[in-house]
Formats: sequence, C-alpha cells, structure tokens
Amino acid sequence: MAPRKEVFEGVEWRIRVAADGSSEALVPATGLARKAWLGIKGLISGFALKVRMFVKKAWDVGTNDPRKVIHCIKVGLALAIVSLFYFMRPLYDGVGGNAMWAVMTVVVVFEPTVGATLYKCFNRVLGTFLAGFLAVGVHWVASQSGERVEPFVVGASVFLLASAATFSRLIPSVKSRFDYGALIFILTFSFVAVSGYRVDKLFELTHHRISTIIIGSSLCILVIMLVYPIWSGQELHSLIVRNMDKLANSLDGCVTQYFNRSGGGTNSEEEATDNKLQGYKCVLSSKASEESMANFGRWEPSHGQFNFRHPWKQYLKIGASMRSSAYCIEALNSCINSENQAAKLIKQHLGSGCLKSSNVIRELAETVKMMKKKSSTTDLLAEEMKSAVQELQNDLKTIPHLLNPSAIPGNKTLETACSEATTPTVTLMELVPVVTLASILIEISGRIEALVDAVEELAKLAEFGINDDKSKHSKMTDKTVSDAKHITQGICLY
Amino acid sequence: MAPRKEVFEGVEWRIRVAADGSSEALVPATGLARKAWLGIKGLISGFALKVRMFVKKAWDVGTNDPRKVIHCIKVGLALAIVSLFYFMRPLYDGVGGNAMWAVMTVVVVFEPTVGATLYKCFNRVLGTFLAGFLAVGVHWVASQSGERVEPFVVGASVFLLASAATFSRLIPSVKSRFDYGALIFILTFSFVAVSGYRVDKLFELTHHRISTIIIGSSLCILVIMLVYPIWSGQELHSLIVRNMDKLANSLDGCVTQYFNRSGGGTNSEEEATDNKLQGYKCVLSSKASEESMANFGRWEPSHGQFNFRHPWKQYLKIGASMRSSAYCIEALNSCINSENQAAKLIKQHLGSGCLKSSNVIRELAETVKMMKKKSSTTDLLAEEMKSAVQELQNDLKTIPHLLNPSAIPGNKTLETACSEATTPTVTLMELVPVVTLASILIEISGRIEALVDAVEELAKLAEFGINDDKSKHSKMTDKTVSDAKHITQGICLY
Repeated sequence: MAPRKEVFEGVEWRIRVAADGSSEALVPATGLARKAWLGIKGLISGFALKVRMFVKKAWDVGTNDPRKVIHCIKVGLALAIVSLFYFMRPLYDGVGGNAMWAVMTVVVVFEPTVGATLYKCFNRVLGTFLAGFLAVGVHWVASQSGERVEPFVVGASVFLLASAATFSRLIPSVKSRFDYGALIFILTFSFVAVSGYRVDKLFELTHHRISTIIIGSSLCILVIMLVYPIWSGQELHSLIVRNMDKLANSLDGCVTQYFNRSGGGTNSEEEATDNKLQGYKCVLSSKASEESMANFGRWEPSHGQFNFRHPWKQYLKIGASMRSSAYCIEALNSCINSENQAAKLIKQHLGSGCLKSSNVIRELAETVKMMKKKSSTTDLLAEEMKSAVQELQNDLKTIPHLLNPSAIPGNKTLETACSEATTPTVTLMELVPVVTLASILIEISGRIEALVDAVEELAKLAEFGINDDKSKHSKMTDKTVSDAKHITQGICLY
Repeated sequence: MAPRKEVFEGVEWRIRVAADGSSEALVPATGLARKAWLGIKGLISGFALKVRMFVKKAWDVGTNDPRKVIHCIKVGLALAIVSLFYFMRPLYDGVGGNAMWAVMTVVVVFEPTVGATLYKCFNRVLGTFLAGFLAVGVHWVASQSGERVEPFVVGASVFLLASAATFSRLIPSVKSRFDYGALIFILTFSFVAVSGYRVDKLFELTHHRISTIIIGSSLCILVIMLVYPIWSGQELHSLIVRNMDKLANSLDGCVTQYFNRSGGGTNSEEEATDNKLQGYKCVLSSKASEESMANFGRWEPSHGQFNFRHPWKQYLKIGASMRSSAYCIEALNSCINSENQAAKLIKQHLGSGCLKSSNVIRELAETVKMMKKKSSTTDLLAEEMKSAVQELQNDLKTIPHLLNPSAIPGNKTLETACSEATTPTVTLMELVPVVTLASILIEISGRIEALVDAVEELAKLAEFGINDDKSKHSKMTDKTVSDAKHITQGICLY
C-alpha cells in the first residue's frame, strides 16, 4: 500500500499542480513577484537616472565656474583649521570650552565673495558686542530687582528689544547694511540675557562668546582674502562690462537678423546669431545680482584697480541705464519677428544707424573695462550715432515720396531707386515695421546717450585715468571713414 | 607798597587785557570756544535731524504696512515664550541646560510669512537630524581608529562633508529647496563631530540639540500660524492681481496722456495720471519677490482658497507674461514722451483699441482675484481686442490716402474726415509716432493674448470654479455696446 500511496500522493500532487487551479494560483504568484521585481527595478533605474542627472548637473555647475569648487574647498579648509580649537588642548582651554562659537561663526559667515564675508564678519562682531554688553547690563538691573521680578524684567526686555531690532530689519536703509547684525543682536541678547538667569559667570560667558566669534571671523577673513580671493566689486565691474558687450551684440544681432532674413545662412550660424540676440535678456535679469554685489562691494578694502570708496552705486545707475536700452531692444525684437517685413528697398537704409549705436556701447564697454576716462573715440562714435539718427529722421521724411514718387519733381536719386525697386510705390503696411524700427532705434540712441553720461559720471567719480587712445583713435577713424562710405552708398540708393 | 602793588598788578593786568595783544589772544580763544560750541551744536542738531529723519522713515514703514509691526510683535512674543525654558526649572532641566538652541532656533527661523518659516523649520530639523546621526557615526569610526589618528579622521570628514554640502548649495535645484538645510547640516555636523573629541556623552548632546531645535521650531510654527498669519501664497496671489491692475492702469494712463496732452488738466489730475502711468514699473521690478513667494508658497498647507499643491509656479509664468507686456508699455511710454506728436486727426482713432487691451487685463485680474475660470466676458473682451487690432491695421492701410487724398476715388468718410481736418495732407514725420504707437499696441495685444492663455492654464491647473458672470455679463455687454458706439463715431471722423 505504501508505495501505491506514495504513487497516489505523487499523482495527486502532480494533478494538483497540473490541473486543479492551484497551478493557476501559482502563475499569478510568480507574476506578482515578477511585477514587484520589475517595479523595484523601475524604481531603482528611475532613481539611478535621477542621481545620474543630478550628478551631471552638479558636474556642469563645477565645470562652468571652477571658482565655485574653489569656494567649497575654502569652506572645508577654514572649518578644518577652526577644528584645531578642539583638537589642541591649550587652544580649547583658552576659550573656556566655547570653541563651538568659532566653528559656527566660520560656517555662517563664510560667503563666496570677500565683500559678503566682510559684511557678515563685521555685523556679527558688532551685533555680538552691542548685544553682549546690553544684556549684561539688563541682567544686572534684573538681578537688583529681586528674584521674583527678575524673570519678568528679563522677559520684557527680550520682548521689547527683539521686537525693535526685528523692526529695524524692515527699514530699507538698515536692511541693506546691518540686516545680519540685527539678527545677531537679537540672538546674542536673548541668549545672554536669558542665560543670566541660570549661568553664574555671565560676564565670562559673554567674553568667551565675543572672543570666539572674533577668532572665527578673523580666520574667515584670512582664508577668504589669502586663498584665491573673489571680490564683489571686481565681479560687479566685470558683469557690467560683459552686459554692455551683450547689449551691443543683441543690437547687432537684431540688425543682422532683420537684414539677412532672406539670405539663408547655415543652421549653426543662425543659432549663433540667435544666442547673440538673446543677450539683452541677461541685462534685463541681472538687477538683483548687481544690487547685492554693489552692496557687498562697499565693504571691501582697496583691491586691484579699485579703491576702498570706489563709486559702486554708480554701477547700479549704469545697469539701470542699460536695462532701459534693453527694454527697447525687446520691443525691437518683436518688431523683427513680426510678420510684416518692410520693403527691402526701404530697410536697406537703416542698418548703418543701428550699427553705430552698438559701436558706442562697445567703446563704452572698453572704456569701463580699461578704467579710463571717456575717450575721444567715444565722442566721435556718439557724434556719428547722432548724425545717423538725424539721417534716419531725414530719410523718414523722404519716405512719403516713395508712396507716390511723382510728387517730387527733380529728385533723381529717388527716382533711380524706385525704378530699381521695379514696383513704383510701397504700401504703408510694408512701411509700418520699418517706421517702428526706425523710431525705436531713435529712442535707443537717446537711451545710449544717457548711458554715455552715466559712464562719464562713473569715470569722474572713480577718477579714472585719461584715455590715451591715439593709436586706437587712428584705427577707429579709418573704420569710421569706411563706415561713412557705407552710409554714403546707402544714401545713393535713394 | 602792598596796596600799591595790588593796584599796580591790577592795572598791569587791566592793561594787558585791554592793550598788549593778550586781549587779542583771548578773543580768538573765546572765538575758538564759540566755534567749538557751534560745531558741537551743529553736529548735535545734524545728528538730531538724522535721528528724526530715521524715526520718520521707520514710522512710515510701520504705517504703510502695519503687518510689519505685527510681525515684530510676533517675534518678541515667540522669544518671550521660549525664554520660559530658562525661567522654569523643570523645562530647563528637561533639555539638559541646552535651552539656548531653542532660543536660537526661534531667532533664526522666524520669518514674516508662514511659508518661509515652515521652509526654515523643516530644513533646520532635517539638516540637524541627518548631520547629527552622521556625525555620531563618524565619531564612532574615528574613536575606533586610535587616539592619534582620531583628529585626522574627524578633520578629514569635516573637510570633505563641508565642501560637498557647500557645493550642493550652489546647485540651483538644491538651492531653491534645501539651501538653509545644507547650511544647518554643515553647522551641526562640524559641531557634533568635532565636539566628540572633547565631550563624553555625544549621543546625549546630539539628542538634546535635535529635541531643542524641534521645540523651537514647533513654537515658531504655532505662533506664525495662530497669530495673524501671513501666507506667502496669498501674498503672491494678491501681488499678481495688483500688478495686473497696475498694468491695465498704465496702459490706460498712456492713452489718456497721449490723447489729452493738449487739453490741460489740473496739476493734481496730471500727477494722478502720472502715478497710474508708472505702475508698469512695479511689474518690471517684482520678479525677485514673485520668485521667493512662489518658492515659499509650496511649503504652506492648505489655507483660505488655496490647496497644498496650488500651482504657484504658474503664477511665475503669469508674472513673466505681464513683464513682457510691461516692456512694451515702457516703449509706448517713450513714444508718448517723444517730441513728434502725431496729427490729431490720426491719433484720435487709436484710443479705443488701447482701452480694449486694458479692459482684457482688468477682467483677467478680476477672474484671478475671484479664483474663477475664464469668463465669457474675457472671451468677449479678447475678441473685441482682436477686432480692434484688426481695425487698427485696416486704419493703417488707409493712412497713405491721407498723405494724398485724391488717390482714392469714392472714399466718402475719408474725404469727409479730411475736409474736417482742414489740412488736406499729413506729413510723415507726424505719422511716425502714431505708426509706432499702433504697432506697439498691436504687439501688446499679442502679448495680452499670451497672458490670457497663462491665466487660463492657471485656472485649469488650480481647478478654479466656473465663472457665473451672467449679471456682470449683461452689464459688460451694455458697456461693450457703448464702446462699440464710440468706435463707430471714431470711424465716422474719417
């Protein structure tokens, strides 16, 4: 029986597996496992993809601006050095075991630029000083007033001073210079005044807090200024110069795109033009960074070509002036992209004026970059721009005749031009974009004149050197002459 | 002799005073004193003036936005409450004398809006947690490696992790969400890991730091959410609505100024118009605040009409769209201020189109404010705007005939218009600003259409309710009819 049973059992089992549905039950089980496995695999690969994307992004951040990597190393270095206050017994005992304040100071005041770090160090030390002594005073008053009243005196003083200091942070003039100091004031005051209720040696606590914060701040200042320093002022200066170049390129790009629309370039060329064209957007979006750099710049000592009291605020005015030109370029851009393209005949004439404006900006960028007074070249180019605008206005006056050429007797060039254009008249709808373009160009030139003035003001305030541009001048004059020829040819077309 | 001497001395002294130059020496001395006194008085009065100016400025800040004062009181309140951890023995002992972390947490995480405070609380707790446990782990590894190697292991880990965390703060996607968390991570990690070298009960230290930070954060969250809460999201919503109104007003202001230039209003009226006109500048300059509000808004729980996952990012798109219109208004503005004023005859025609555009913006502002889906009124107004643009383009086509009216036979209205205008032709220089204005208006209407789309997208994403604007609709239709009449009259002029 036993073997039969075994066989039977075996068969029964086999049948079950093969036919009675438990096999069906098993198939979904492996299916679930597979699904779960696939799900987990999907999750993992999704996560891996995300990680890979993140690493790529981080890598791009590092390679695009290696100074960021250097900044990180500097932070690590400063922290490793300040850790010595823990690792070396005499140092640790020297600050009464309060080395943590030095570590914290390094963490919170270390910023990428010298100016920002100096601002935070100065504010932190000043805020701690003021609040420390005030808190010790308040503690003394409170302790004189009896044990039961003490918490109320301390609590009320914390409430009042914290409210007042918080309010001061909301006043723009305080915010721009002492925002961090006010925060540290509240922090230290609350900490010391309230600690006074439990800590016996309050004066010692305050003294240690102040000295450790000074140690931390000094270390930060040393590291930030000695190891590959990045200056806010220098950054602002470069940003303004770079933005001027971008503005000039955008203006050029607009003209190029407008006039070469029919002549199809290669794709990569078009892309390059497009990138140039979009440069004005950088100008539009850099207001916030300009302001913070100017704000930090004034904390920086004399460095490179910049004095301690370099007129950083004037850079903000130049930036604002550039933005006002950039708004016009934005309008110009829409003009270019509009469907109504001006008659070829008419628009041919306008390019030179536009290029004149960008030449002025480029020259200004050069002047600011070299930190020189306005060169005679700038004057020359500005004059050229003005005369180009005058010409543009004169040309606009002659356009009506194109609409009905018979109205002007004896205008030979115009007649020639019209006969060259084969169509005798131009419709007004063709004229609309060109007239718009012209008036925006005229407006831009006005704003560029304001930019010239702002740069001149900077040169005066910062006492830039005199621009010795003799050699360049002669070169530029040559260029000017050839430009002038170009204009003459332009006029001859009419 | 004695009396004589006295007399003599007296006389001598008197002579000296009166005649020998010492009197002259005395006069400058009193002069110096007076000068010094005047100088000090000047300094004091100058200082008093500065203080008075500062107090006035502070007072203005408070009266212009009383919520700022409330914020200050909230900070004071939160700090006074957290001080109880010092004043009440059981609470003080409960956190092992580490109550200062709670005080510090309150000072540094308390921000004016709920979103910003939640962001900081969450980041502070998360950063402390992660860094605390990691630091305890590193300390364990370091302590296993022998006393001589320990400082190097700890120092190297601080250097590496601090550098890595600092680097992560420079990656935009991390910066926008976890900037503060990364800072706190560095702070806590350095502090705990390095303290491990001197402190025995490291785990307890970490535990106390985490629990006090959680206590401080919870207190802040309670105070910020219960006492007169200010929500970043709500602020962003109101800012966008307010900016839309300002944009519409600017557009209107431009038209008013352009068309009423000759009809001199009173000075105060002019000022009011001018203020309205400058509204677009607010739109141009609010990018940074929009971004930070949207960033903090996503940390806020459901409040008022806003859900937890309200599409705050879409508000940024609306803001960008508004800015692109504002750029055009800036160009329009320069157009208005330009010296060439268009012929009255021609410019009379353009106002209605301009007003159409601002009506659309106003209706959009209303829709967003009420958090409703795009109303049929919006569609209607947008259609009207489009047809106004179409009309504008048609009108532009008829302008050449004004330059030479005899060219079009049988255009009766136009002839009537011209005879009404008494001058038969208009010079092109008079046309330039009007053509520019028209093309900028056309451009603006295109951008407003993009704005309509952006608002529609927001309504879809945020699942706004359906706009039941029957009553308003009928009212608006009435207005539309009268507007239409106005237009017809406008056309009749030609």
